[in-house]
Amino acid sequence: MLQSQLFAKTTKQAPKDEKSVNAQFLIRAGFVDKLAAGIYTYLPFGLCVFKKIEKIIEEEIEAIGGQRILMPCLHPRDKWETTGRWQVSEMFKLKGRSEKEYGLGWTHEEIITPLLKKFIFSYKELPCYVYQIQTKFRDEPRAKSGLLRGREFIMKDLYSFHSEQKDLDNYYEKVKNAYFKIFKRCGIGDETYLTLASGGTFSKYSHEFQTITDAGEDIIYICENCGLAINKEIKQEHSKCPECGKAKFRQEKAIEVGNIFKLGIKYSEPFNFKFKDKNGQEKLVVMGCYGAGLDRLMGAVVEVHNDKQGITWPKEIAPCQVHLIQIEDNQKLNKVAGKLYKDLKKNNIEVLYDERKDKSPGEKFAEADLIGIPYRIVVSERTIKKNSIEIKERKEKQSKLVKIKDLPQFLNEKLKTKNKKRQRKI
Amino acid sequence: MLQSQLFAKTTKQAPKDEKSVNAQFLIRAGFVDKLAAGIYTYLPFGLCVFKKIEKIIEEEIEAIGGQRILMPCLHPRDKWETTGRWQVSEMFKLKGRSEKEYGLGWTHEEIITPLLKKFIFSYKELPCYVYQIQTKFRDEPRAKSGLLRGREFIMKDLYSFHSEQKDLDNYYEKVKNAYFKIFKRCGIGDETYLTLASGGTFSKYSHEFQTITDAGEDIIYICENCGLAINKEIKQEHSKCPECGKAKFRQEKAIEVGNIFKLGIKYSEPFNFKFKDKNGQEKLVVMGCYGAGLDRLMGAVVEVHNDKQGITWPKEIAPCQVHLIQIEDNQKLNKVAGKLYKDLKKNNIEVLYDERKDKSPGEKFAEADLIGIPYRIVVSERTIKKNSIEIKERKEKQSKLVKIKDLPQFLNEKLKTKNKKRQRKI
Repeated sequence: MLQSQLFAKTTKQAPKDEKSVNAQFLIRAGFVDKLAAGIYTYLPFGLCVFKKIEKIIEEEIEAIGGQRILMPCLHPRDKWETTGRWQVSEMFKLKGRSEKEYGLGWTHEEIITPLLKKFIFSYKELPCYVYQIQTKFRDEPRAKSGLLRGREFIMKDLYSFHSEQKDLDNYYEKVKNAYFKIFKRCGIGDETYLTLASGGTFSKYSHEFQTITDAGEDIIYICENCGLAINKEIKQEHSKCPECGKAKFRQEKAIEVGNIFKLGIKYSEPFNFKFKDKNGQEKLVVMGCYGAGLDRLMGAVVEVHNDKQGITWPKEIAPCQVHLIQIEDNQKLNKVAGKLYKDLKKNNIEVLYDERKDKSPGEKFAEADLIGIPYRIVVSERTIKKNSIEIKERKEKQSKLVKIKDLPQFLNEKLKTKNKKRQRKI
Repeated sequence: MLQSQLFAKTTKQAPKDEKSVNAQFLIRAGFVDKLAAGIYTYLPFGLCVFKKIEKIIEEEIEAIGGQRILMPCLHPRDKWETTGRWQVSEMFKLKGRSEKEYGLGWTHEEIITPLLKKFIFSYKELPCYVYQIQTKFRDEPRAKSGLLRGREFIMKDLYSFHSEQKDLDNYYEKVKNAYFKIFKRCGIGDETYLTLASGGTFSKYSHEFQTITDAGEDIIYICENCGLAINKEIKQEHSKCPECGKAKFRQEKAIEVGNIFKLGIKYSEPFNFKFKDKNGQEKLVVMGCYGAGLDRLMGAVVEVHNDKQGITWPKEIAPCQVHLIQIEDNQKLNKVAGKLYKDLKKNNIEVLYDERKDKSPGEKFAEADLIGIPYRIVVSERTIKKNSIEIKERKEKQSKLVKIKDLPQFLNEKLKTKNKKRQRKI
């Protein structure tokens, strides 16, 4: 895409009331706009990153059998009365003109349980895995952490339905693996720890996925032996690691980027959601639920991947792979850079082409660093004299000269190698 | 996909309070579920159709320069006070714990205008086209038309920003063309008419796209000479066709599937959204807005494309292209049908494979007709004796035998020819 065409430009300053690093950078780099506390608009590049995260989640959840649906945001009061959760103070509530009362969905157990009850009657129809990627609303008293804690945000929520606990236990492990793949592909695999936590209103215990960063609102204790972490809220119940029995922990600040729960019969019971087992006996369906916030994940990635100059996007979720910058303006340069732009696109490489005439090289480089695309390519008089361009990885300091004719292959290999590496590691 | 795996099954009856044909069929065929009046869940096949409609809209809107963003559902009261539209009775309103008031977005002029004001200062940055595909909420007094009139629904809304009226006028014509392409690709091109209508709270006049069907809530008068239609609400202002001057009209019932408006300075004025022209003079930005509801479009397609047995999906938005039905169960048949399923998928043909053992041929055929996939392929003892399968178009009565080895090519040609035809027509 041509940078001159992108309406959402970078800005020097984020709003004064925006303290978080993620929102500061994402606003300044033109990825999001703040409408109100905890409420953001995704601008074209922000939505582009968002869609890449969505695709990764979709692929990994469908690889473990998830069938995608889309449930509504407006929830009738009676469904929430059934489970006694209508009074939860984080739920926004409203009345229509007909005096009908609705809550705005902050989770969807109260919708999916009666929904699946319409379709599942026999053990033959179990297990079953259903997910959605949908807007949620939460009346947050504090919404000061940028994308980490929104009043409106988008979540992937997966629900699993089983005939027995053992089957849930098995699937729960599969979801853990899928989550690690998701976080790895989003570039925060190394920083993210499986963490034992309280189950909140869902179950006694749950597992969180916590990403280490100074911006974290949570404190976790990571077992130095096996790597399992424990959330501070339940740390006093566990003097030893419940996984390996050792008692040496290190304390870290972290952001919760995912949370998975064994619900058991907590929601199938109030909705009387039963199936017939092999012997024709009626039993309650056993459930699990698995959440991950997409905005929060994007915010966490930015908290982990940035430097003083701006964002340093991981390759798989960067808005583009290449930022092509033309400095100086003459016919020959325009032709070379224009052709390079077309050739890269033909090779399926996503390119942002900075062809603007009214910006200095310094301004262009500063903006490129702020936006944080993985590879920066500079075309100038100096480089094309050598039939070359200058290429620099966003995280590196040194650039190198590469012959123009070798560039598509050079890049494809870089990107391919990366993909292969990732696949081997998982 | 294997039909046995699809959790959302067909049902014999839709809810008793659901009168509309579109919702009746979509619920019975397992595409949507009704949560409450005007509030639906998209089940896997429903979401699949929905995503295809979304992709068509995305392609056609980006072809005319639209940049996609995502604005929030929760709107702070002050933005709506600025334009005096806070009191609109269709807007759901709510209060957070902090006493902060929000409206749920039913359109987004009040959000996009101050948003673009942050980025556009000069004539050099105009024109600019920005769109989103986002959930809207409307407190409908009557929500009895299935997907045609939801309390919660998803819309594509495009906004255009111009330095002068003439530029808006030109772009408005481009959007008309893009809309016709969208409706044609969704299979309702022949039934959909450009219709002069009132501008509501937006402008004096607007243009609607009205699709003729008995389920229509609107009455339109179509000029027998040039094909322009006029909405009943403004018909008495136009004894002659404003396009060609003739006065012969036929009356039809129709569904509004799109609505486009020349806003002019109606929203840039209250938000004081100005730009500097070539002479350095400040002027108000001229705006247009262009809406199309995705749920409504899907509902309209079903109202147009159905028969007594069920839905007859147009090819480009059908959930799959082929419904592969195996009748009888033995090792040889399983092998042949299983291999065919794989081969078709390898040829990038989307297939629903009905491999269920516990359904009779009659049940399978009835379900296939209800679901409405364009091609039905039957594999049975009788056909494989001739190394063939039986293929039938959903809308045809006659099936024909095709050699198994010729099938992928046979189908690819059918689908290709169709695509070519479409491209020529537009």
